[in-house]
Amino acid sequence: MRAAMYTRERTLRVEEHEPVPPGPGEVQIEVAYAGICGTDLHIRHGAMDARVPDRAILGHEASGRVVSVGAGVAPDLVGAPVTVMPLRWCGTCAACEAGHSHVCQRLRVIGVDLPGAMQSLWTVPADVVIRLPDDLPLDQAALVEPTAVAVHDVRRANLRGGEWAVVIGGGPVGLLIARVAKAEGAGVLVVEPDPYRRGVAEEIGLTTLDPTTEDVPAYVADWTAGAGAPVAFEVSGAAAGVRTATDVLGVRGRMVVVGIHPDPVPVDLNQVFLRELSIVGTRVYDRADFDTAVELVHRGDVPVESLISEIVPLAKVSQAFDALESGGVVKVLVDCQAD
Amino acid sequence: MRAAMYTRERTLRVEEHEPVPPGPGEVQIEVAYAGICGTDLHIRHGAMDARVPDRAILGHEASGRVVSVGAGVAPDLVGAPVTVMPLRWCGTCAACEAGHSHVCQRLRVIGVDLPGAMQSLWTVPADVVIRLPDDLPLDQAALVEPTAVAVHDVRRANLRGGEWAVVIGGGPVGLLIARVAKAEGAGVLVVEPDPYRRGVAEEIGLTTLDPTTEDVPAYVADWTAGAGAPVAFEVSGAAAGVRTATDVLGVRGRMVVVGIHPDPVPVDLNQVFLRELSIVGTRVYDRADFDTAVELVHRGDVPVESLISEIVPLAKVSQAFDALESGGVVKVLVDCQAD
Repeated sequence: MRAAMYTRERTLRVEEHEPVPPGPGEVQIEVAYAGICGTDLHIRHGAMDARVPDRAILGHEASGRVVSVGAGVAPDLVGAPVTVMPLRWCGTCAACEAGHSHVCQRLRVIGVDLPGAMQSLWTVPADVVIRLPDDLPLDQAALVEPTAVAVHDVRRANLRGGEWAVVIGGGPVGLLIARVAKAEGAGVLVVEPDPYRRGVAEEIGLTTLDPTTEDVPAYVADWTAGAGAPVAFEVSGAAAGVRTATDVLGVRGRMVVVGIHPDPVPVDLNQVFLRELSIVGTRVYDRADFDTAVELVHRGDVPVESLISEIVPLAKVSQAFDALESGGVVKVLVDCQAD
Repeated sequence: MRAAMYTRERTLRVEEHEPVPPGPGEVQIEVAYAGICGTDLHIRHGAMDARVPDRAILGHEASGRVVSVGAGVAPDLVGAPVTVMPLRWCGTCAACEAGHSHVCQRLRVIGVDLPGAMQSLWTVPADVVIRLPDDLPLDQAALVEPTAVAVHDVRRANLRGGEWAVVIGGGPVGLLIARVAKAEGAGVLVVEPDPYRRGVAEEIGLTTLDPTTEDVPAYVADWTAGAGAPVAFEVSGAAAGVRTATDVLGVRGRMVVVGIHPDPVPVDLNQVFLRELSIVGTRVYDRADFDTAVELVHRGDVPVESLISEIVPLAKVSQAFDALESGGVVKVLVDCQAD
């Protein structure tokens, strides 16, 4: 079979790879689709070379069917449609002991630290497998993982129905957060400069604003009758997004930092002081977030099919990465059976 | 009578000033002591010239006795020892309507926006007056206001007994926070470069660390058995303090930003992400914080007398400001009856 491997020097190669038979406690999945995530782009950029192993097989947003199971795994799992919660924690560090194993001090991510989904046959521990409803299309199911991210982010915001939320950045996770927040009863505004992404956001019933032509804080002040927004999600990963988030929040407002900021970013702590704001970190998800994500996608509350811009065969994964970096798309899936 | 007025151009003058008789709903206080606060220093530096009125009478940490009352105020207040919660809110903005009047969008502070305590006779609205226990010495009572700040800061941290807290900055508010946190059952470490302030901290039973000679994150990691601190109070107002706070926090740790940072400060949002940290803004206090502060000071749980480095007569207020800026002191009180 073939697998998409990061061979360093900004190169992703689809090469022959021997499938790994499932050992005790493991299952082998015939991967249907694997989504390409911002983290995958970071890896190809070389930004995580110190972390990822040689010839790393990427992919942590996936769907498929179990084709065989190792010793100690219930055989009735064979044939089941599944996704994967791609986390491995140590179980013994302070974070795990405090019940926060998703931020384990020695957390390993399948598809980053361990072999990922961009291969036709993928062997993973059985306990990371999430069984899916039989009638959930597998292309949509590949978006359960980023939806679980969004569910976790919204939970970290402690968002209450009827509150306003500003989502800064309308990429896949931003749009998923917006729809999850809407499903929670919030009024949502998506701030996104890319017209294609704004178009997709509007298609799925979201109100959008172009920060290159509009005064976002003035708009939000008006929209909230002078109060400012109770919640802002910073999903842009840009310093300007952090600035916008502090600017739009009202008294006791919460900024959830979803975007990745590798370097320290200037934060206006004077506004944090004046209005007693909170800035809240958020990382991946736990099992309950995954279960909620499956429900939201299955019920259609989060219309993930509208976010899939393109499905490419595994052989074209490198070109798909290029396309993602040049913009004008939301989510790109890799069909891991089409070679 | 005489009053200490900020006459701009970095100048504080003690000048003759006509006492203001109490109008309806007001009381006149014979001020015993007024503490000098960092905000007062900022005002003298000219940093708040756009906000403070001409010939502003400074002072918002005060104790004294009511000497007369205006119409509509219970006459039995005359003779009572009091302090003042120096806030005036509008009652109609979004913050007030949400029950957060202490961060009112039009908040005015007595001693900043309105005439303060550095005068022999001070007239204030009766509803800002907090009655004190008869046996609480009035010099100690002048520290109830900064203790209320500390109570509010500790409450914003959601500190639970048995948790570790790192206090970065051992000035008056830092030391008060440390003692309030200790009274809540926390294990406390005070990080402070000034040897005099470290000495005062140790005198009141606090563990200290000199950040100029010790590796603070390594010390905290060791002290918390590798977990990191659940809570850090940034009271230094310096960017380095913010950096230390993110460095020492463990998973789901909370940084309370107490120090004033007028300009945006680089914040390591990658650490906020990795360990799901929270950064929490805090501002002044509410009535319940003041009531708690009175109790803590009265019971001796917060030994404020040890924080009083010096008491100067009103005539020497300008020299006292100079002394505070050159370091080597904690809290300086102004005796508003000694001229």
